[in-house]
Amino acid sequence: MSPLTGKWFIEYTHPSQAHMYGIERYVYDGKTPFQSIEIVDTDFFGRCLILNGKIQSAEFDEYIYHETLVHPAMVAHPLPEEILVVGGGEGAALREILKHPSVKKLVMVDIDQEVVKLCQDHLPAWSKGAFEDPRVKVHFMDARKYLEENKTKWDVIIIDLTEPLDHDSPSHLLFTKEFYKMVAQRVKEKGGIALQADNLNPRLLQYHGSLYNTLKLAFKHVDSYGAYIPSFDSKWGFIYASQDYCAADLQPATIDKRLEERDIRNLLYYDGLTHLNMFSLTKDIRTMRSQEKRIIEDHNPFFTY
Amino acid sequence: MSPLTGKWFIEYTHPSQAHMYGIERYVYDGKTPFQSIEIVDTDFFGRCLILNGKIQSAEFDEYIYHETLVHPAMVAHPLPEEILVVGGGEGAALREILKHPSVKKLVMVDIDQEVVKLCQDHLPAWSKGAFEDPRVKVHFMDARKYLEENKTKWDVIIIDLTEPLDHDSPSHLLFTKEFYKMVAQRVKEKGGIALQADNLNPRLLQYHGSLYNTLKLAFKHVDSYGAYIPSFDSKWGFIYASQDYCAADLQPATIDKRLEERDIRNLLYYDGLTHLNMFSLTKDIRTMRSQEKRIIEDHNPFFTY
Amino acid sequence: MSPLTGKWFIEYTHPSQAHMYGIERYVYDGKTPFQSIEIVDTDFFGRCLILNGKIQSAEFDEYIYHETLVHPAMVAHPLPEEILVVGGGEGAALREILKHPSVKKLVMVDIDQEVVKLCQDHLPAWSKGAFEDPRVKVHFMDARKYLEENKTKWDVIIIDLTEPLDHDSPSHLLFTKEFYKMVAQRVKEKGGIALQADNLNPRLLQYHGSLYNTLKLAFKHVDSYGAYIPSFDSKWGFIYASQDYCAADLQPATIDKRLEERDIRNLLYYDGLTHLNMFSLTKDIRTMRSQEKRIIEDHNPFFTY
Amino acid sequence: MSPLTGKWFIEYTHPSQAHMYGIERYVYDGKTPFQSIEIVDTDFFGRCLILNGKIQSAEFDEYIYHETLVHPAMVAHPLPEEILVVGGGEGAALREILKHPSVKKLVMVDIDQEVVKLCQDHLPAWSKGAFEDPRVKVHFMDARKYLEENKTKWDVIIIDLTEPLDHDSPSHLLFTKEFYKMVAQRVKEKGGIALQADNLNPRLLQYHGSLYNTLKLAFKHVDSYGAYIPSFDSKWGFIYASQDYCAADLQPATIDKRLEERDIRNLLYYDGLTHLNMFSLTKDIRTMRSQEKRIIEDHNPFFTY
Repeated sequence: MSPLTGKWFIEYTHPSQAHMYGIERYVYDGKTPFQSIEIVDTDFFGRCLILNGKIQSAEFDEYIYHETLVHPAMVAHPLPEEILVVGGGEGAALREILKHPSVKKLVMVDIDQEVVKLCQDHLPAWSKGAFEDPRVKVHFMDARKYLEENKTKWDVIIIDLTEPLDHDSPSHLLFTKEFYKMVAQRVKEKGGIALQADNLNPRLLQYHGSLYNTLKLAFKHVDSYGAYIPSFDSKWGFIYASQDYCAADLQPATIDKRLEERDIRNLLYYDGLTHLNMFSLTKDIRTMRSQEKRIIEDHNPFFTY
Repeated sequence: MSPLTGKWFIEYTHPSQAHMYGIERYVYDGKTPFQSIEIVDTDFFGRCLILNGKIQSAEFDEYIYHETLVHPAMVAHPLPEEILVVGGGEGAALREILKHPSVKKLVMVDIDQEVVKLCQDHLPAWSKGAFEDPRVKVHFMDARKYLEENKTKWDVIIIDLTEPLDHDSPSHLLFTKEFYKMVAQRVKEKGGIALQADNLNPRLLQYHGSLYNTLKLAFKHVDSYGAYIPSFDSKWGFIYASQDYCAADLQPATIDKRLEERDIRNLLYYDGLTHLNMFSLTKDIRTMRSQEKRIIEDHNPFFTY
Repeated sequence: MSPLTGKWFIEYTHPSQAHMYGIERYVYDGKTPFQSIEIVDTDFFGRCLILNGKIQSAEFDEYIYHETLVHPAMVAHPLPEEILVVGGGEGAALREILKHPSVKKLVMVDIDQEVVKLCQDHLPAWSKGAFEDPRVKVHFMDARKYLEENKTKWDVIIIDLTEPLDHDSPSHLLFTKEFYKMVAQRVKEKGGIALQADNLNPRLLQYHGSLYNTLKLAFKHVDSYGAYIPSFDSKWGFIYASQDYCAADLQPATIDKRLEERDIRNLLYYDGLTHLNMFSLTKDIRTMRSQEKRIIEDHNPFFTY
Repeated sequence: MSPLTGKWFIEYTHPSQAHMYGIERYVYDGKTPFQSIEIVDTDFFGRCLILNGKIQSAEFDEYIYHETLVHPAMVAHPLPEEILVVGGGEGAALREILKHPSVKKLVMVDIDQEVVKLCQDHLPAWSKGAFEDPRVKVHFMDARKYLEENKTKWDVIIIDLTEPLDHDSPSHLLFTKEFYKMVAQRVKEKGGIALQADNLNPRLLQYHGSLYNTLKLAFKHVDSYGAYIPSFDSKWGFIYASQDYCAADLQPATIDKRLEERDIRNLLYYDGLTHLNMFSLTKDIRTMRSQEKRIIEDHNPFFTY
């Protein structure tokens, strides 16, 4: 049993708060040019991916994170065909997107080829073969540069990035007003974007609130939504943004109908009732979010703990 | 800052999973005839109450726990006048119940007089004077014995107990089919009960699922609901049960209207939209709960980790 | 058993090294005008005193620390009559000194009256009534000021102080060349001083080495010595200094003879063979100490981690 | 800096006592047929070898352990030529033994070929080429079986084994009276043996005391000795046993003379004065050891925590 191994991973969310994960085995422990990476086996959460000292996803509950990130935006769109994923190196966002039969083209842009390779080798259950799907194309480059150089528009853009720790973080300029305005120009009519958007713990809502404010400057409709993710020890925030749709208004019956029409039957987390849960924010989160006034800009970035 | 003190409280949820809380100060550290009790100040969560090595409530987020425990059952009832609280030593359930102006009689039965006294001394923000309210009466005795001896019926019964650790735990016979059947007989027509009902982490759903099954044997309508509680590091489970109402069917507008009619304007967590969030369980929890078949009985108790 | 309580005290000796002590009970947790103080019960080491987040002494092994601090200097002196203790609030140094029947006058100067009071209340086994001995007199004041104002000379001076953490630490000017030179002037002929002198871990020898160098400027003979103290997780350093004696040259037989002549029979740690162990430093410590060149001065203090 | 990695190794010496080591990198994490093995880089102690969840040796201070294990026995012998090492997979005992120029034949018997291979690959500084020395021969087999089958006698036998955790531990029958009696028959006249012999913390002296008692049944002279090893957080015990010599009686000048005659000048830890330190046990350890009466036998083994 894990504790006997003496190996623990301790993740601080605050100088006086931490979560201890007992480790069975360090499958991989190294550094890429962009970040530190560990792949570990835990007794409780199964295999986990850790980047820069933070749990990114766990075998046991990555379905929650990835279904939450992908399906609301995909279901909100009546016929999603061309999809862009920014970040998302594990390949699990690809896996979920490909469940929608209308998808014709799926491009992923991730800066860190080494992480993608390590995930394919050690986390095959995340991508479940998605990287081999003929509709999928992967570019290893900075996503901001990619979007500057490629004016293509997309039905859905999924942004799956880790918040920057400092100016050196590769995602430093991928959480700003300038970036989101460019993203907005790459979305087709009736399209939308979805992104992971930091912690929804009401005490730690500064980042989420700032992202919400910042996206409001680029999109007409912006909806926060959330999911409790056990391996993060937290309710985690996401945002859906669109010029055309308000995802929070989608009725459970509509969700269930679209999933059925698309013959998507094997989801573990997402359905109409779950959609209702995700998009009905509790009062304290609404209050705290409204008190956050910050805008994130290229020259005024927001670094995480 | 807390970490410099070297004082940590480490709560295990599993042999290989733990949460570390940096402690500013141990305000009280002792034992009552029934349990160990610590009252601590933390930098992150403010003052916290710990019973038998488990965080019970924290200054920062006890509003989530207590509003969630109390208001759905109180709002579901059109005119709650006579209320019983089983357990709930901190007095915060009393505080929330008294916000409903129709309340005429409020009885609390808690076995541990010393905990109640320590909470009044050290956690006054929890009860906010509720113990001095003339409608409130407290009996220090075993709740099962109280219910056996008192045949009075109640509009709402709120059960706020910690799961038993072993046969010696005072709550040992307060989580069983036999107990809930007796509770059901003490509820008036149109009435209902609400209880805290263990972790909703899908990996740890055994206790919640068993409680759900057990309550189904005593009540016609049983609804699981949940709230993410940061200091518990988890989405926490609650159950509403009634012979007459299905709380999950209450519409947000109805909730908001009743709160307004009762002139309850100072809630931090609960309103119509929050009610929707609470009662819309995600698909994985519904699935896991349906797989749990256990019934808790006097001769077949369920002890927690 | 302790781990079940969830209460831990974690002491860092370095950013990546720490010792975890399972706590049974926080007996006292507070602050004096000079320092933070905790008195705790542990399963392994019994009752412990913690000042400013560092274990000072433990019921189980304080005999090692205090016998080591006191007896070499007392035995080295042929007839110690007038003794000064600088610091030493717990009273255990007094207890050991009073075992020498020649003692006529024993003065302790400690700045923190509150710590002394708390130790008398909660750690009575440390002082074992020494504060009530008619030969003992305690002054609550800054030791440097005391020595400036009182020109009395002493047979033995025992210095039992914690290293300063910063300029605000009350011991800030009690570890410097200027202080030791004044101390040297307060020692009678044939007299000597002993002090606790930081960690002897060869990786952490900077403080000890600096103290050794600094004392060499004030005394003719300076001897490092050490004792492994389990509750410190370390071999701990002490220094004996004198104008007349070299404690390291005292033979085991001489030590045992003097202890017998003085009818001191109840020591747990110190005797002739132990003296040999204490003063025979291992080669690595001798090497590392010789590489440390620093001198501690009033205007060039040395703060500990 | 290490703590930022979140990776910690926590070694318990008791249910309520533990040491936390911040890990830079897991170089290797696996299992052999006989034990679990981790090779890690730490900021404080450099590279470390961990077997079965216990730190075995650290780059920073393995010189203390291995010089202490090897040199007293080698120096006590006037002309050590044929040496047997039981266990000692890292090869550092070989390295130290080969510093004695009289050595003609050096055989190591270790059950775990995989550990030896991993140490050669990842801990080359431990063996410093010793495995390539033509005088060295390694047998991968159970040491008890080896000694039963090989009646050869040796000048010095060095036993470097980890205490058994249970009946399945490969060293289960290598710490017993029966084993030591056989070892005694394999020592030539004027020869002796040395072994690592568990913790010298006076609170944890049961194993050391039992080994001492057990060896007394096989050898005429048995001397406990110790060294403080920072990475073990403890004073560690060793035993020298012989039919002819009492190592504790060797004078510092004799030690230094023999080291000089053998032209051994590059030791970091061991010399005459260090020998004095090692063999002068403090009074508390002598007392505690004398209170331990246990004998370890094949049918009455002693398992460690």
